Amino acid sequence: MADNKKMVNAITAMDVDFAQWYTDVVKKAELADYSCVRGCMVVRPYGTALWENIRNELDARFKELGHENVMMPMFIPESLLQKEKDHVEGFAPEVAWVTHGGVDELQERMCVRPTSETLFCDHYANIIHSYRDLPKLYNQWCSVVRWEKTTRPFLRTMEFFWQEGHTMHETAEEALAETEQMLNVYADFCEQKLAIPVVKGRKTDKEKFAGAEATYTIEAMMHDGKALQSGTSHFFGDGFSRAFNVQFTGRDNTLQYPFETSWGMSTRIIGAIIMTHGDDNGLVMPPAVAPTQVVVVPVAQHKEGVLDKAAEVTERIKKIARVKMDSSDNSPGWKFAEYEMKGVPLRLELGPRDIENNQCVIVRRDNREKTIVSLDELETKIPELLQAVHDGLYQKALARRESMTYTVTTFDELKETADNKPGLIRAMWCGDLACELKLKEEAGVTSRCMPFEQEQLAETCVCCGKPAHKMVYWGKAY
Amino acid sequence: MADNKKMVNAITAMDVDFAQWYTDVVKKAELADYSCVRGCMVVRPYGTALWENIRNELDARFKELGHENVMMPMFIPESLLQKEKDHVEGFAPEVAWVTHGGVDELQERMCVRPTSETLFCDHYANIIHSYRDLPKLYNQWCSVVRWEKTTRPFLRTMEFFWQEGHTMHETAEEALAETEQMLNVYADFCEQKLAIPVVKGRKTDKEKFAGAEATYTIEAMMHDGKALQSGTSHFFGDGFSRAFNVQFTGRDNTLQYPFETSWGMSTRIIGAIIMTHGDDNGLVMPPAVAPTQVVVVPVAQHKEGVLDKAAEVTERIKKIARVKMDSSDNSPGWKFAEYEMKGVPLRLELGPRDIENNQCVIVRRDNREKTIVSLDELETKIPELLQAVHDGLYQKALARRESMTYTVTTFDELKETADNKPGLIRAMWCGDLACELKLKEEAGVTSRCMPFEQEQLAETCVCCGKPAHKMVYWGKAY
Repeated sequence: MADNKKMVNAITAMDVDFAQWYTDVVKKAELADYSCVRGCMVVRPYGTALWENIRNELDARFKELGHENVMMPMFIPESLLQKEKDHVEGFAPEVAWVTHGGVDELQERMCVRPTSETLFCDHYANIIHSYRDLPKLYNQWCSVVRWEKTTRPFLRTMEFFWQEGHTMHETAEEALAETEQMLNVYADFCEQKLAIPVVKGRKTDKEKFAGAEATYTIEAMMHDGKALQSGTSHFFGDGFSRAFNVQFTGRDNTLQYPFETSWGMSTRIIGAIIMTHGDDNGLVMPPAVAPTQVVVVPVAQHKEGVLDKAAEVTERIKKIARVKMDSSDNSPGWKFAEYEMKGVPLRLELGPRDIENNQCVIVRRDNREKTIVSLDELETKIPELLQAVHDGLYQKALARRESMTYTVTTFDELKETADNKPGLIRAMWCGDLACELKLKEEAGVTSRCMPFEQEQLAETCVCCGKPAHKMVYWGKAY
Repeated sequence: MADNKKMVNAITAMDVDFAQWYTDVVKKAELADYSCVRGCMVVRPYGTALWENIRNELDARFKELGHENVMMPMFIPESLLQKEKDHVEGFAPEVAWVTHGGVDELQERMCVRPTSETLFCDHYANIIHSYRDLPKLYNQWCSVVRWEKTTRPFLRTMEFFWQEGHTMHETAEEALAETEQMLNVYADFCEQKLAIPVVKGRKTDKEKFAGAEATYTIEAMMHDGKALQSGTSHFFGDGFSRAFNVQFTGRDNTLQYPFETSWGMSTRIIGAIIMTHGDDNGLVMPPAVAPTQVVVVPVAQHKEGVLDKAAEVTERIKKIARVKMDSSDNSPGWKFAEYEMKGVPLRLELGPRDIENNQCVIVRRDNREKTIVSLDELETKIPELLQAVHDGLYQKALARRESMTYTVTTFDELKETADNKPGLIRAMWCGDLACELKLKEEAGVTSRCMPFEQEQLAETCVCCGKPAHKMVYWGKAY
């Protein structure tokens, strides 16, 4: 118990300092460490294993829908970046520039990709000739670099890891359908695998991706009421195709420009997992992507037969879950705290008395509920309990989001809410940039999205009082 | 047949121009394409799928041996690169330098990692404190950049993809054992999965990795008799630990420096696959890593029942192999040539007559041997035939290597062989750098390795005539 306390005390309480709590969890759970490179992190084995599980889940979904992976160069020549006007304006201020190769100065400098629309378009111009070549459904897993001033592990790092899908289609309708489909893939993944409820919607013009006609987003609410953009999907129309001269011969034998999408999810989502499910004891991993789903802790392991039985149980569980036994000489209390910190969904305790009774104790990480389980029923009970943890996490997050979402109809109400109640604010908007800017300046909130599920909350804009038909989620964001 | 011929003519014959044949295969088999970034390639879906299979196979082997993946920054600050003298001398001339972030000039420039020993050591200094923290067995999958003057897809590109293992150990013996173990992992993988026979050995001091005490290598022989270094494993002693001040408290309570290894295999290995197994019809994929192991080609597919039966057969094969059906409206001849170009190990032809007889024709890519297989026996025959292709490829490559390996004892013999007979040359060496340099200058060969399996071919050095105890493989290399 003393050990347990020590570990728990090692992190700042959420209510005391949420930002510090976050940093403590990242370090103590050994997800990531700072590196000697400004703004870049070292993703440690536990964080990398989590990212690999996320990647494998998403990758399978992408492939099932016909997408193929490719590997593009990490550099973009300056002239290529400049081909699409809005895009270069959006990204040029925040890229890393390579100016020298060995001792020679480059004739043309290159940036490290901040995103790869330009490279994909350049390649697509080479390989798309006929409508028969469409659609092209490509994706890549890589890292990208954006020269951020202030950084935080996973949430905002200079280099981050992600996947970026880039697709080309014969018609605008097809491309729009792809944009929506991929947003749904992200939303389903967040809800079904990460136990994170999300709002699906469209970004306002001010918040959309540089060069896109429309950006769709999923927004999740963190423990502190702030929003986190968790995945985006963009529709480009034929703007990039025209800029990069990607053309195909259509069914009617005329030259046409294909329609493009791109969509991405990044290691930011690990930040979302931490801040949605974590508590004062550390991380809580959603079972579907947890590197370790069950930890077996032998109790009184020096007693005869305990370690053997624990090993036997571990071997059995290996067939149905990612399991690990900790037979180190640390105390059970230390181990309990350690795996709570790391957020392992289920802890299985097994001591001499349990063995006598042919049972074990399984403790859920999310609510600490203990269940006595017969050793004969492990194969059915463990999957049930993992599902119960998932459901518990999802319901808790959903209830929190609902209790922290406010509906307002006047500016005063909005400002009062924004100032005093962390969370999301639903309010009507006329569509004018001026109102969006005023809300940001005077109430400190930005538009998170125009949700697909709209409601007419009032007849007028919360800001200017003009007629309004768009319901927007406003909030503070990571 | 006409179609078939057209496809075959589309690539240069090996004997006419081997380099051009190689480039043709890379392009026509759609493994990779040139990009707008000098020396960087676009790895296309087929090449990426191949790399993913290689990665998954290797990654499983690494993990089975206790290695964990991490993700390190892609940048190295100049001061960090300079910490180990030999290392910086070896790599500084060939790195890409980032000098600006957005519009600001950096106070200290950073290079894009050419390899990550420095970053791993910097991290290890933070996380290794006690002998209990050892060994650390880390690996990462990433791309690295080396500013090469002349580049060729897969063989030598400015940016290439690889894995780099970096481990730290309590003792030199343990680190040496790791170095050897990982070389054996590479060798076994090449032979068992890629059907590429390799020579295992140690590099001479001249050829070893910058900063290493010893470099072990596996060398494969390509179709043209040139050698390709296919994987390397390095023992660093405690040199890097000292340079980076990585220290741990030992079992005897004294501060000690741990011993380090690193090891890597890259997308170069795809070049080895192409040049070991390919022929004038294109690529030949080793079955274990082939993105498509079996292609089903319906013959006379407009006839009733053919497509249905082909689809049914494809579904059955899906359970035992990576299979694809091509029911496009291209002619069977076109399809035959296409999948030969792509090197699909087995082609299954199925027409109305076959269906009547409850059979199909399976054609091996490696030797074009046809087998009539009862549709009742697909599940046993296909794995057998895949294994036969693997064995056939391996035996053919081994026989070629043996027939193109020469043993010489005098300088004249060596020069005569080097000038006229492509292949590897076995000869004794005294160990002097001067002889190594002379052989390079006058005979155009470099030392590929000192094989672990040594033979005393003669008493004296092939170059200077002094006593010699080292047998070396000499050759021309990619």
